Amino acid sequence: MTIRIGVIGTGMIGEEHSRRITQNLTGGEIVAVTDVNQDQARAVVERLGLAAKVYEDGQSLIQADDVDAVLVTSWGPTHEEYVLAAIAAGKYVFCEKPLATTAEGCRNIIDAEIEAGRRLVQVGFMRRYDSGYNLMKEAIDADRLGEPLMIHAAHRNPEVPERYVTPMAIHDTLIHELDTFRWLLDDDYKSAQVIFPRKTRHAHSKVEDPQIVLLETVKGVRIDVEVFVNCRYGYDIQCDVVGEEGIARLPEPQSLTFRQAGQLSCEILQDWKKRFNDAFDVELQGFIDGVAAGEVTGPSSWDGYAAAIAGDVCVRAQESGAIEAIEMPERPAFYA
Amino acid sequence: MTIRIGVIGTGMIGEEHSRRITQNLTGGEIVAVTDVNQDQARAVVERLGLAAKVYEDGQSLIQADDVDAVLVTSWGPTHEEYVLAAIAAGKYVFCEKPLATTAEGCRNIIDAEIEAGRRLVQVGFMRRYDSGYNLMKEAIDADRLGEPLMIHAAHRNPEVPERYVTPMAIHDTLIHELDTFRWLLDDDYKSAQVIFPRKTRHAHSKVEDPQIVLLETVKGVRIDVEVFVNCRYGYDIQCDVVGEEGIARLPEPQSLTFRQAGQLSCEILQDWKKRFNDAFDVELQGFIDGVAAGEVTGPSSWDGYAAAIAGDVCVRAQESGAIEAIEMPERPAFYA
Amino acid sequence: MTIRIGVIGTGMIGEEHSRRITQNLTGGEIVAVTDVNQDQARAVVERLGLAAKVYEDGQSLIQADDVDAVLVTSWGPTHEEYVLAAIAAGKYVFCEKPLATTAEGCRNIIDAEIEAGRRLVQVGFMRRYDSGYNLMKEAIDADRLGEPLMIHAAHRNPEVPERYVTPMAIHDTLIHELDTFRWLLDDDYKSAQVIFPRKTRHAHSKVEDPQIVLLETVKGVRIDVEVFVNCRYGYDIQCDVVGEEGIARLPEPQSLTFRQAGQLSCEILQDWKKRFNDAFDVELQGFIDGVAAGEVTGPSSWDGYAAAIAGDVCVRAQESGAIEAIEMPERPAFYA
Amino acid sequence: MTIRIGVIGTGMIGEEHSRRITQNLTGGEIVAVTDVNQDQARAVVERLGLAAKVYEDGQSLIQADDVDAVLVTSWGPTHEEYVLAAIAAGKYVFCEKPLATTAEGCRNIIDAEIEAGRRLVQVGFMRRYDSGYNLMKEAIDADRLGEPLMIHAAHRNPEVPERYVTPMAIHDTLIHELDTFRWLLDDDYKSAQVIFPRKTRHAHSKVEDPQIVLLETVKGVRIDVEVFVNCRYGYDIQCDVVGEEGIARLPEPQSLTFRQAGQLSCEILQDWKKRFNDAFDVELQGFIDGVAAGEVTGPSSWDGYAAAIAGDVCVRAQESGAIEAIEMPERPAFYA
Repeated sequence: MTIRIGVIGTGMIGEEHSRRITQNLTGGEIVAVTDVNQDQARAVVERLGLAAKVYEDGQSLIQADDVDAVLVTSWGPTHEEYVLAAIAAGKYVFCEKPLATTAEGCRNIIDAEIEAGRRLVQVGFMRRYDSGYNLMKEAIDADRLGEPLMIHAAHRNPEVPERYVTPMAIHDTLIHELDTFRWLLDDDYKSAQVIFPRKTRHAHSKVEDPQIVLLETVKGVRIDVEVFVNCRYGYDIQCDVVGEEGIARLPEPQSLTFRQAGQLSCEILQDWKKRFNDAFDVELQGFIDGVAAGEVTGPSSWDGYAAAIAGDVCVRAQESGAIEAIEMPERPAFYA
Repeated sequence: MTIRIGVIGTGMIGEEHSRRITQNLTGGEIVAVTDVNQDQARAVVERLGLAAKVYEDGQSLIQADDVDAVLVTSWGPTHEEYVLAAIAAGKYVFCEKPLATTAEGCRNIIDAEIEAGRRLVQVGFMRRYDSGYNLMKEAIDADRLGEPLMIHAAHRNPEVPERYVTPMAIHDTLIHELDTFRWLLDDDYKSAQVIFPRKTRHAHSKVEDPQIVLLETVKGVRIDVEVFVNCRYGYDIQCDVVGEEGIARLPEPQSLTFRQAGQLSCEILQDWKKRFNDAFDVELQGFIDGVAAGEVTGPSSWDGYAAAIAGDVCVRAQESGAIEAIEMPERPAFYA
Repeated sequence: MTIRIGVIGTGMIGEEHSRRITQNLTGGEIVAVTDVNQDQARAVVERLGLAAKVYEDGQSLIQADDVDAVLVTSWGPTHEEYVLAAIAAGKYVFCEKPLATTAEGCRNIIDAEIEAGRRLVQVGFMRRYDSGYNLMKEAIDADRLGEPLMIHAAHRNPEVPERYVTPMAIHDTLIHELDTFRWLLDDDYKSAQVIFPRKTRHAHSKVEDPQIVLLETVKGVRIDVEVFVNCRYGYDIQCDVVGEEGIARLPEPQSLTFRQAGQLSCEILQDWKKRFNDAFDVELQGFIDGVAAGEVTGPSSWDGYAAAIAGDVCVRAQESGAIEAIEMPERPAFYA
Repeated sequence: MTIRIGVIGTGMIGEEHSRRITQNLTGGEIVAVTDVNQDQARAVVERLGLAAKVYEDGQSLIQADDVDAVLVTSWGPTHEEYVLAAIAAGKYVFCEKPLATTAEGCRNIIDAEIEAGRRLVQVGFMRRYDSGYNLMKEAIDADRLGEPLMIHAAHRNPEVPERYVTPMAIHDTLIHELDTFRWLLDDDYKSAQVIFPRKTRHAHSKVEDPQIVLLETVKGVRIDVEVFVNCRYGYDIQCDVVGEEGIARLPEPQSLTFRQAGQLSCEILQDWKKRFNDAFDVELQGFIDGVAAGEVTGPSSWDGYAAAIAGDVCVRAQESGAIEAIEMPERPAFYA
């Protein structure tokens, strides 16, 4: 059985996911696409050689009889509407982060999904599918580190464009850590604080860069994440989990070691897309397999909601400079 | 278009390749299997849920109308016969190493393929598809090291069974390096010498272990490969290419770095199948795509022949203790 | 000219320094020792084969005509008295940290030294003499990292005895980082905050462990130091300086890399004394050479005072949980 | 007791050793110097502020009543004469490598020393005092690797001057490995073979570069050493000892790890003098202490002789291309 997929939003990530499904993965086929820019949607169909119909808008694509599952890769503010429509249509939907731009929007989706009576939504937190993070998860779950006590992490980009402003360090960058650490630790957040070190001269005027985000979990784990989006030297994801019995560090991406020109060196990735390239494959294959099996098991609406709540508090902490409480509503049994 | 594939030999590697094609790769389907042990063939069909017919023997499988391409994963001494039959039937054939157990057998295949007028054969040298070796190949081809002058390499297994005897260090182990280095350097071998260090107490009586194989290429590159198949500590593939301008080292497989119990440590792989797991995927996907495109571009019969010739000389060098010349016939334009 | 040195306090560190001066270093000779435990002082004289007189107390040792310089390695609460006496006697004095147990005590020493009109005091902050930290200092001073923005550090011990209580994480452990980072950055502290992660089960009841200390400097650099004194796995000092142009990490202590028993591993030091063994040599040689040259240039009373002030605020921050301001008095021209 | 030392040969190494003894080490004093260039000898006395008499020649320096021990750091061909004279005068002598330029010359020294009835000579093989090699020696002696089976080593220099010709790869470069591995393994050499890879374009016309030297020991250990003296990238000493139970690798020299400009990198040393800087200190301190104790325990005349014999065979192997036998005479009980 091949899952027939419709893609809403054929920008970079939408095209890339369409390409993966068509060329790398098994069991799925892109049969429908749409974009606010219809020309671009048509161009993607052509570039990838898809046998896909171009729809006028997301709603009509979602309603199409031959669409089994929907990929929402459009502009963030439109996510909520399309996910709700897919749920209403009883269709599985993979939604790129954010699930919605507000916690309230996420809550609406949760309510709709519970109302629908079964999990239909998977949120695009691809790090849960990264081999390195999975080694870390296995080490923690196998109690190789003892109880986790701290995480020291960094999320660094070589540079960001001028439209990237201070809150985006949370909503666009930290959002991945916010989900990943909940999952790694099987825990929830309790408080957040944001510290602004001296600003790098390479940052634009509207972004504080770097930032250090301090998170406290319900179990008492303390997390510090350096977010540094104009670090110049590369795209670099660091994560050390410190436990009672020892520490584990996330692997560096594979590269040759050179001895050359007075240096012992390895190349550092520049392009974030390459860092989680394999993870995207595993993530989407998991979604397709889940749809085929009638049971989607990836990051849920609840996970999207939890990240949104924590993210909102982090932005508040950016503004206040204070330690801000994070209050998660009780988790419905539906998402247990 | 889905390539319909028949598998001859459903032992470990045959089953594993069938699983890959069915579960991981796109564009291919297992429609036919056979094995000297028919029960095992049937068991694999069942385990993997294949819609495949079980044939009585390789010849009838090769002749089957619905088989587009053949995978030869049977016992080594049977490879030549099946590859020749596939060529005779005008069918693409992927043959696990060795292409044939003798250089003469490889030559027969070459003659038949040239006679057939087009490349039908791909040999299972999966390292050419390993991401680490490909980084090395790119570095060499981009002249980042200057002219290569030396390769220092090691091929280590934790242990081997009692049936593994001295010449198998060449035919079953070094064979991969013999192909890989020809490809990495775009070069051919000129001489071989084998040195036997003090034998490890962990080796069985019929195998000299470790061994050091010294190879000289036509361009003058000198290669030393430590083959150590009872090294105890893990499956470990090392490769340093030393060039005029610097040195590059193959990456270690990805793993967490631990600080624990007085040690800063990473785990070393134990299972060779995991080391080249991704490479096997890329290799077989390449074969399927090649068949679909009507042009197989992976390691050729000529590459299988070249490895066989070099391997035979290495075994002679094991016996003589002398520096033995390797003479490659001129490469036919067909394989240019 | 040999500098004749008197040692006040012949406990572990006093004996060790006496041994260094006698066996490893040049230009100094131990001619006088004293300890509250006279038997122990005599035992050290005998063990090291010193030609040294055993004095009844520190004051008489300081007054002795043949003592050119004094080493204060006694119990912390006695440091202030002996340093003041040495200054009054016009003698050079090397004082192990802390210079005094209170900031006020340090201020008394500063006032006395200024009154004396020349620098006589060197404080035992040995990390300034560590080769790794010096490489870091050189990299920063040579502007190889751009302006420093953050420091991520860790100070980990395998375990501590029962008498080690929460404030000692500052006064006995963090004190080294407090001095080192002022020196590395050529900067002063502006605020401190202390965070208590979930406590390790390996800590005694009277110590919060681990702790994370957050420091802000006048220039805006943000520093986080994990202090984890029951980390189990070893004595481990980590320091990453993050600058506008890149990051530098302190070297790990030298050790063999093993491939053994499924692990790629290096040993981690267990004994803190070995970590800064060479630094102690350079430090004390520097003191002796400084005395001989009539100009002591190592960490000054002012540095001891600055560390004491910052340390006091960190302890206050342990208690309050709040971000506490650190106010340094203006630096006298004398210490410019 | 201060050992009064005379230095014969005040070139770079002679001056450097004089500086060490004067500034870094304890228990020794330079009281006499000489050089074929008297002006240079005087210049060194002045630069280092030595209270040393400048002698007209080595022989008169050796005879001087106030000279307790002699350092021979003159031109290689003069070593034998001065060492013999020191033995005849009953004085301890530290001789830089080579002990003599011929094996016969070494034998003469051995005969004289045996005749003298006690060990007076220490040869300047400083690697035995390197901390990294000592970690390796301890690992082997503690049986952490099981029986050693192979050593893979490299000795690389960034470049050499025009006067460096092919045999110097043995006599000036490999000589250190020849001594070090005998000591590490507590073994002797049995055969040698030299392989010439493709020559680097950066080598002068009179030197084959790189070379690979293959050594076999009496116990059957096989050693391969890459000697590459125009490797461009740095001064790099590599040594892997492969044993029955695992492998140990020599540490890289300490340096910062940078993340900068797309690279994760460490600096590689360029200057060989820095590589073994600490080892030179320990070596000479050991000599001084040995003289003071009346028992010199460092590398002996026999070790110098063994290295010379092996070196001569390696040069013969360079010329013949064959596997050449190394025959060591029986070791006199005197050197047991």
